[in-house]
Amino acid sequence: MITVGSVDIGGTKIAVGAVREDGAILARHECKTEPEKGFHNAMQRIIEMLRAISAEGLQFKGIGVGCPGPLSPTTGVIEEVGTLPSWQGGNLLVELEAGMNLPVVVENDADAAALGEARWGSDASDGTFIYVTISTGIGGGILFGGHLYRGVDGAHPEIGHQVLDDSGRPCYCGARGCWESLASGPAMTRWMREQQPDAPNATASEICEAAKLGDVLAIRCVEREGYYIGLGLANLITIFAPDKIALGGGIMKSGPLFMDIARQVIRDICTQVPSKKTRIASASLGQDSVLLGAAQAWLLRHKR
Amino acid sequence: MITVGSVDIGGTKIAVGAVREDGAILARHECKTEPEKGFHNAMQRIIEMLRAISAEGLQFKGIGVGCPGPLSPTTGVIEEVGTLPSWQGGNLLVELEAGMNLPVVVENDADAAALGEARWGSDASDGTFIYVTISTGIGGGILFGGHLYRGVDGAHPEIGHQVLDDSGRPCYCGARGCWESLASGPAMTRWMREQQPDAPNATASEICEAAKLGDVLAIRCVEREGYYIGLGLANLITIFAPDKIALGGGIMKSGPLFMDIARQVIRDICTQVPSKKTRIASASLGQDSVLLGAAQAWLLRHKR
Repeated sequence: MITVGSVDIGGTKIAVGAVREDGAILARHECKTEPEKGFHNAMQRIIEMLRAISAEGLQFKGIGVGCPGPLSPTTGVIEEVGTLPSWQGGNLLVELEAGMNLPVVVENDADAAALGEARWGSDASDGTFIYVTISTGIGGGILFGGHLYRGVDGAHPEIGHQVLDDSGRPCYCGARGCWESLASGPAMTRWMREQQPDAPNATASEICEAAKLGDVLAIRCVEREGYYIGLGLANLITIFAPDKIALGGGIMKSGPLFMDIARQVIRDICTQVPSKKTRIASASLGQDSVLLGAAQAWLLRHKR
Repeated sequence: MITVGSVDIGGTKIAVGAVREDGAILARHECKTEPEKGFHNAMQRIIEMLRAISAEGLQFKGIGVGCPGPLSPTTGVIEEVGTLPSWQGGNLLVELEAGMNLPVVVENDADAAALGEARWGSDASDGTFIYVTISTGIGGGILFGGHLYRGVDGAHPEIGHQVLDDSGRPCYCGARGCWESLASGPAMTRWMREQQPDAPNATASEICEAAKLGDVLAIRCVEREGYYIGLGLANLITIFAPDKIALGGGIMKSGPLFMDIARQVIRDICTQVPSKKTRIASASLGQDSVLLGAAQAWLLRHKR
C-alpha cells in the first residue's frame, strides 16, 4: 500500500505525518508554527520532520499539504493569510518539492478536512457533502460526488462569510453580520463580555462548561450560538439541498449543547427544500482531519 | 435538425412552441393558465396547442416542459405550488406522454431558464453559472460545467429563500428577511406602502418609472432594492465564487437602476473570494428563456 507524507499547517502548530492509503496514520511529528520566523524557516522544519519519518523506514510516494487560505492549490502560492502574516507570497509547492524531491499537492485546510472526512470519517454519500468547521473562524469545503468544488480560477468558497444579519456587527471581511462574526468562538466570548463587561474574558469552551453547570447567562450564550449555527446551516441547506453536512472544529466539541436548537431553526426555516433529507452529523476525524485530508488530496490527484 | 415541442407553464399564461436544436423558435402559441380550471384541463389545452403546431408541418422528437416548482423532474409530479393551487399531485410526464406519444422531459422553470440562458443566451463558461430571476419571487438555477445542479433526491435549490437579515419581516417560507421577502417586486410595493400608507399601491415597474422621473421616495426605494439585490448576489459569490451570474425576471428590466449599487455592495462585502472574477450580466433571452430552456432540457437528456 502507498504511504503519503502529510502536512497540516495551522496558525499555532504544524503536524506532519505518514498516512497510508487506507487512512492509517503510521507516524506523527509536531512543532510550533512560529510564523514570525518566516515561511522558509517553517518549510525547513517541515522537511526535517518528513525526512526524520522517512529515516524510520517509511517511504513516501508524495506529500500532501493542508494550509489555511487564501492560497492557490494550482501554484502553491500563499496569499494574505491572517494567521500566517509574514508568509504572503511563499510557495509551498516549490519549497517542498525541492526539499523532498517528491510530487507535492497543496490544498486549503478546510477543503483538505472535507476530503478527509468524506473518505475516512463520516459516511459521505455520492451526492453533495459539505464539511463545516466552527472554531476561531468558520470555514468549510464542498464536495460533489466526492470531488472538491472549486470556484472561478480554483477559488475556495468562504461559506463562513455569508451574511445572515446585515444589521449585525462589522466583520474584517467587510460585511456586517456574516456567519463567522455571529457564531465563531470569539463571537461567543464577545457576547458574554457585552453582557458582563467587568467579568474576565471567557473562552467558548469555558462558556460551554459554565452552561453545563447551569450558569444562566452562559446558557443564553449557548442558545444564541445554537440559533446562529442553525441559521448558517439553514442557508446552506436552502442553497444546496445537500445530502450531508458534517460539523467539525473546536466549538463542535460541545455540539450536543447547540444542535437541538440548530435543528429546530432548520426545521422552521428550510421549508422550500426537502431539508429532512439532509443528514447533519458530527465530523469524526477530530484533530487529524486536515492531516488525513491532505494525504487524501494527494491520493486523489495521483493515484489511478 | 431536430425540433422539440416546448411548454412554458406560468402562473398567468402558458406558452407552447416549436424549438429547433439551434435555438430558433419556429412557432409559438399562448393561452391563459386559468389554473382554477384544474390540471387536466390545462394539459388538454397544451396538447391541443402542440398538435396544432404539428399540424402546421413541424415534427417533434419530444416535448420539454418548464413549470414552477416544487416538482419532481424525475416523476413529473407537481407538489404544492403557490401559483398553481389546485394542481398538486398532477403528473406532467404521464399526461403529456399519453397525449403526445412522445418522450417528455420536465424541469423546474428556473432551472429550465438557466439551461436556456447558458446555451443560447449569455456566454456561460465551462465553470459555475448561476441564473437568477427576480420578479414576483426570486429563484434561480445553478449549472456546473453546463450541467444542472440538483440537491438530495433531485431537489431544486431555493436561492431566493436564503436569509440575509434575520430580524427582517417574516416570509411565507418560515424565515425572516430572506432574499425574496426583501428584494422581490412585491417587497418594493410593500416598502413604498409603508412609507406612504395613503397613496395607491405602486407596482415595482411604476416605482422604477417614478424613480427615473426623479421622485425622491421612489429613488430611495430603488436604492434599497439595489442594496438587497447586491446583498443576495454577494452571498452567492461568497458561497460559490461563480464564473458568471445572469440576472433575469421582470425586476431586472430596470436593471440599470439597481446594478451600480448592487455592484458596490459586492465590492464592499466579497473580499474573501476573488469576486472581481465573477462576471455579472443581464440574462438575454427575455420572455423566451423558459421556452428555450425547456427545449434545451429535453435535448440535453435525449440527444447524443
